[in-house]
Amino acid sequence: MLTIKHQNTIDNAVKANHERAFYSQYPEHPKAYGENAMEQGAEKYQQLLNKPYKQLLQTNEISWAGEELSPYSMEPLGVTYPIFDANTLVEKAAAAAPQWRNTIVSVRADILVETLEAIKDRFFEIAYATMHTTGQSFMMSFQASGPHANDRALEAIAMGYHEGTRYPATLLWEKPMGKTSLVLKKEFRAIPKGTGIVIGCSTFPVWNSLPGIFADLVTGNPVIVKPHPKAILPIAIAVSAIQQVLQEKGFSPNLCQLAADTSAAPISKTLCEHPGVQLIDYTGGSQFGNYVESLTGKTVFTEKAGVNSVIIDSVTDIDAVLQNLAFSVSLYSGQMCTAPQNFFIPQTGVTTTSGHLSFDEVVQKFKDAILSLVNNPKMGAGTLGALQNDTTLQRAHNANKLGAKVILEGQPIASEEFTHLRGYTPTLLEVNSSDKKIFEQELFGPVLLLIKTRDTNESIQLARQMAQQHGAITCAAYATNPEVKEKITEAMNSVFTPVSFNFTGFIWVNQHAAFSDFHVTGGNPAGNASFTNPEFILRRFVWVGNREVTGS
Amino acid sequence: MLTIKHQNTIDNAVKANHERAFYSQYPEHPKAYGENAMEQGAEKYQQLLNKPYKQLLQTNEISWAGEELSPYSMEPLGVTYPIFDANTLVEKAAAAAPQWRNTIVSVRADILVETLEAIKDRFFEIAYATMHTTGQSFMMSFQASGPHANDRALEAIAMGYHEGTRYPATLLWEKPMGKTSLVLKKEFRAIPKGTGIVIGCSTFPVWNSLPGIFADLVTGNPVIVKPHPKAILPIAIAVSAIQQVLQEKGFSPNLCQLAADTSAAPISKTLCEHPGVQLIDYTGGSQFGNYVESLTGKTVFTEKAGVNSVIIDSVTDIDAVLQNLAFSVSLYSGQMCTAPQNFFIPQTGVTTTSGHLSFDEVVQKFKDAILSLVNNPKMGAGTLGALQNDTTLQRAHNANKLGAKVILEGQPIASEEFTHLRGYTPTLLEVNSSDKKIFEQELFGPVLLLIKTRDTNESIQLARQMAQQHGAITCAAYATNPEVKEKITEAMNSVFTPVSFNFTGFIWVNQHAAFSDFHVTGGNPAGNASFTNPEFILRRFVWVGNREVTGS
Repeated sequence: MLTIKHQNTIDNAVKANHERAFYSQYPEHPKAYGENAMEQGAEKYQQLLNKPYKQLLQTNEISWAGEELSPYSMEPLGVTYPIFDANTLVEKAAAAAPQWRNTIVSVRADILVETLEAIKDRFFEIAYATMHTTGQSFMMSFQASGPHANDRALEAIAMGYHEGTRYPATLLWEKPMGKTSLVLKKEFRAIPKGTGIVIGCSTFPVWNSLPGIFADLVTGNPVIVKPHPKAILPIAIAVSAIQQVLQEKGFSPNLCQLAADTSAAPISKTLCEHPGVQLIDYTGGSQFGNYVESLTGKTVFTEKAGVNSVIIDSVTDIDAVLQNLAFSVSLYSGQMCTAPQNFFIPQTGVTTTSGHLSFDEVVQKFKDAILSLVNNPKMGAGTLGALQNDTTLQRAHNANKLGAKVILEGQPIASEEFTHLRGYTPTLLEVNSSDKKIFEQELFGPVLLLIKTRDTNESIQLARQMAQQHGAITCAAYATNPEVKEKITEAMNSVFTPVSFNFTGFIWVNQHAAFSDFHVTGGNPAGNASFTNPEFILRRFVWVGNREVTGS
Repeated sequence: MLTIKHQNTIDNAVKANHERAFYSQYPEHPKAYGENAMEQGAEKYQQLLNKPYKQLLQTNEISWAGEELSPYSMEPLGVTYPIFDANTLVEKAAAAAPQWRNTIVSVRADILVETLEAIKDRFFEIAYATMHTTGQSFMMSFQASGPHANDRALEAIAMGYHEGTRYPATLLWEKPMGKTSLVLKKEFRAIPKGTGIVIGCSTFPVWNSLPGIFADLVTGNPVIVKPHPKAILPIAIAVSAIQQVLQEKGFSPNLCQLAADTSAAPISKTLCEHPGVQLIDYTGGSQFGNYVESLTGKTVFTEKAGVNSVIIDSVTDIDAVLQNLAFSVSLYSGQMCTAPQNFFIPQTGVTTTSGHLSFDEVVQKFKDAILSLVNNPKMGAGTLGALQNDTTLQRAHNANKLGAKVILEGQPIASEEFTHLRGYTPTLLEVNSSDKKIFEQELFGPVLLLIKTRDTNESIQLARQMAQQHGAITCAAYATNPEVKEKITEAMNSVFTPVSFNFTGFIWVNQHAAFSDFHVTGGNPAGNASFTNPEFILRRFVWVGNREVTGS
């Protein structure tokens, strides 16, 4: 009898996917992984620097290259990666495919959970690699690239297992025909679509890539992992771990290949347009994302840019609200795809349970809340992290030239620990609701816009319009009246944007929990895919039913 | 408490969708519907002729038109339909939408099953209308446009109900945080994508349209039904029945509008490109189908043309096989999208349990089997039916000029009952495997190609190539060796084509049973959609999750 080692884990994850209550397989506290794990991870990370990365089980590279730079030290990591010809990658994927395709989904899922366990053993290495490529704080690096990414991967595995076992593998179909009956032997096969590529981004190289990687693999497709050239190491470590388990289990490591490239010689378009590639997962800017979506004959999953709104109508405790929002906008310096950017506030101000505040009072309090967080020696630097690249730095630096009223001007971050850190504190701008030209663009990074509206109706109308035209992944709203809440919900949901109401305390709109929150809905220009709804899995394979007259 | 009248029907259908064993809600025997139902249906059909069709609950038409013609009498039906401006249709759909969208899926499903019951009461009218627009025999008209179509509709309703209730409407999400916990109130809404249009074809105006209509409706979207101008009446009756139930239940009949048009002033492109239309279901030729698939910003479901193959390797009883195939190719004169066209037979002939037959012997026996059926006074005319249009007649008539060896030349069908019937008996052609130019096109209608191959390997390779390049909805295969069977299965399934093995007796490759057989896989050029896999439903709405801090 077939033994599925991780059956219990898979079953629990399938159940969690359906129930959508709190569930996590991988604890988010670093302490859960042992006393010395962090220190050992730091050492292992140090040992990887300034040399070729040799842990991949891939051969036939044409050269070695690497161009990563720590936004904390502004020093190159010095790691180089094997570079492969696109044809080589696609051919090796195709060669590895049949054995995997012909392995039943429960065994595939079991092996893939085993790879997650192998990745878990490297969470801390991955965390340091994430920190020093993306600029995330250590804690965010650990959580986002470690337990949270693994939970998202398990979510995809579980959805793949559930969908792949949805119909009986074989059955007898018996149609009554008067005194006799007609019997057919039927079988249902979930046929994988073919080779996938997963194109990663520079800010969340693991979290945004694992779902696509595991969705491809669990549905029987080989996958080629194409990281951003400035953030390779974190996902290279994960791919190594996956390859090692695959090889141990008797499968080809080429089922999951790393396809590192360089800024000077990018490989993404060649891979996307390769006739041997059927599936594309992409996270990144909208321009390339729209190109990927336009490719015919490919099944495409995207997460692109968006403009996330906050609608402030009325609140219970304005200080609690603005503390929460100050943290949301400061977290990783606004470099999360879920970070709020546009704050719609009525010109008449905001009602609170302890009285009314004018628009200007709200603005002043928001500025104070941000300054209080940013200048907090225990919290500020760790919350803001560093800026992944110079473009984001320049955008932050030039935000005061956008034509808006500058409420708070950002400053270079002074860090005692990292004296060369690339960072910039948030810039807070005020505009009118007619200044659409300014606020209808994504200003990725630490730039916030407070938009003075006629009233909450206009706030809702503008937030909806931004989501519909430019995409949105989240919307936060503060309202105490149930009718206003339903009005906001209907408006934002109609453009396929979820709403988070009245967040205060230790929960932020930026956070989407695996097994419960769908990440991106797939319904507006922010992306056509969702972690992990059934479509994210189903579009990777095709149900085919064969029939046979019995006794033949 | 909410009472769902048809809960039991819905639950059984959901179960059947999963189990995929034999299941049918609507019996396929005319007798099941009462002694006088057929006669009454014939009378009702007669009463509809030569006058405007007034049963639709739609207003504001700009004119009346109709151009249907019976392929049996070659007389016009004389029925005219209200013609609407595209904008009017889209505006009315949008106006009707909110009430339906805000009705929970179980109530929508319940009302939709009620509409199926209303359609059931009109099965015989619809059957005669189908017969005299499509050219199907009465029995096929009854079954395909009646019980089989309703079963497919129920299948779509059940899938919509299942997917629409997959996640909890509301729940408490509680994350443990050491000694306390963080609690969020969450809700999941299945937001409909928007207005759908369903573009029908001239050969199966009901069967091919109901799944899209009911898939749109059950997921909360209004639908505009655009029939082929030569086959309006059958679906007009069904739409009337749906509208009447919707109105009785307090909803706008504009949730399901008929959009009849004329050959001279077609409306399909205008509707497809209308910014107010989000969903498109299309059945018909590949050229328009490819155009529909190329539209950006639309969710598209297609069933287009294909080239279906039969691979003959070895058989138990060649006479039983060829009788079965003769029926398959004669049924509705090859005008089913599932009809086989290309027969791949090795030049060395076919092994049977009672000895070996040469290629020429198989060809001769096939010819005899077709002639025996066609010339059978009890079976022939009723099996062949009539040809829907002159293009198909011309194609049949000119088949002997394709450059192939003519084994059996088709003849006009002589019918005593219908002296003016437009019909043509099957033409049987023989070609070599190198004559790809002849057999790689869909020859819709009663034209068959026997292709002499080097061996079964070449047969498989060619059948696979046809499916991959030109699409295929079915593949029949005859083989006694399990290894050969698996080889055929793997090859055809790899291009997302199902295989039916060793069909003899009262089961034909043309038939796809609701609740069990997926119709079209969606994986090859024959179409991108499948009746009814989960994707057929899921792509019509978007899951959106809202969150709120409790107590707020």
